[in-house]
Amino acid sequence: MHSNIMENDKKYLLRSIEIAKESIVNGGGPFGAVIVKGDKIISEASNRVVLNNDPTAHAEILAIRQASTQLQTFELNDCTLYTSCEPCPMCLGAIYWSGIRKIVYSSDRTDAERAGFDDKFIYNEIMLEPSKRGITFIRSSDPGGEDVFRMWNEKDDKIVY
Amino acid sequence: MHSNIMENDKKYLLRSIEIAKESIVNGGGPFGAVIVKGDKIISEASNRVVLNNDPTAHAEILAIRQASTQLQTFELNDCTLYTSCEPCPMCLGAIYWSGIRKIVYSSDRTDAERAGFDDKFIYNEIMLEPSKRGITFIRSSDPGGEDVFRMWNEKDDKIVY
Repeated sequence: MHSNIMENDKKYLLRSIEIAKESIVNGGGPFGAVIVKGDKIISEASNRVVLNNDPTAHAEILAIRQASTQLQTFELNDCTLYTSCEPCPMCLGAIYWSGIRKIVYSSDRTDAERAGFDDKFIYNEIMLEPSKRGITFIRSSDPGGEDVFRMWNEKDDKIVY
Repeated sequence: MHSNIMENDKKYLLRSIEIAKESIVNGGGPFGAVIVKGDKIISEASNRVVLNNDPTAHAEILAIRQASTQLQTFELNDCTLYTSCEPCPMCLGAIYWSGIRKIVYSSDRTDAERAGFDDKFIYNEIMLEPSKRGITFIRSSDPGGEDVFRMWNEKDDKIVY
């Protein structure tokens, strides 16, 4: 797995690591991400959870949002994401929704755990059924939620994503 | 599981469903979310992926971001999230990072699948090891990513989140 990294992949991964280090110095979280299309960097971001008061402001989420704005599309199919650490479940979900098909990373969820981050815990929780998780999940079909998707399915001019 | 829903839970869940329906009419995705603290609605949001050109703009993510801005904190421990549909893995990750401990929802990932959404597929992918997923994961420790968490661990004045 370590052997098939190309020279360009290494360059952009190194850049994501530089961003992570700069972020620590600037009061942000220790994570950096870069999105590349072809041979061009489309977006760069660091973790700004504390700086922005935003639990969703992970480097990968911010890089995806910036790239989408930059390219004016919600589909980043031709892009590669370089990230200093394996994406957490939130960021991995965002990657799937964005259509990004290639991820290059350095540290992983176990390294993150040793640095005090919950990535591994959240991966473990997500794999459980809702009723077995550490947070309370209550499902109710009472208020007629099934009408929502019925309306959606019947809408002719919808943009599917 | 369906029996322990309280009157207030039902009211806010109904509101999230109303938001989802309004969203369809307004050209957004068929999802709505409401965050409540005590007896007060802190934020409301609908899915704006297509409207914002942002694959991360799910109702729950937007509601969490707005609540964090509103309350000036990245910790929403005392809040409840009401959402018209079971959160996808991205949103569930965001929920864990936010500290929200209670979720009330109506439709689930299977209903979402029938309406054309990838929630269930992404849940299945996330449970796999990176090397077994449908997208390419390349790990490289070459560029010295381990320095990042070493710097972080040695930083005295960091804010842990």
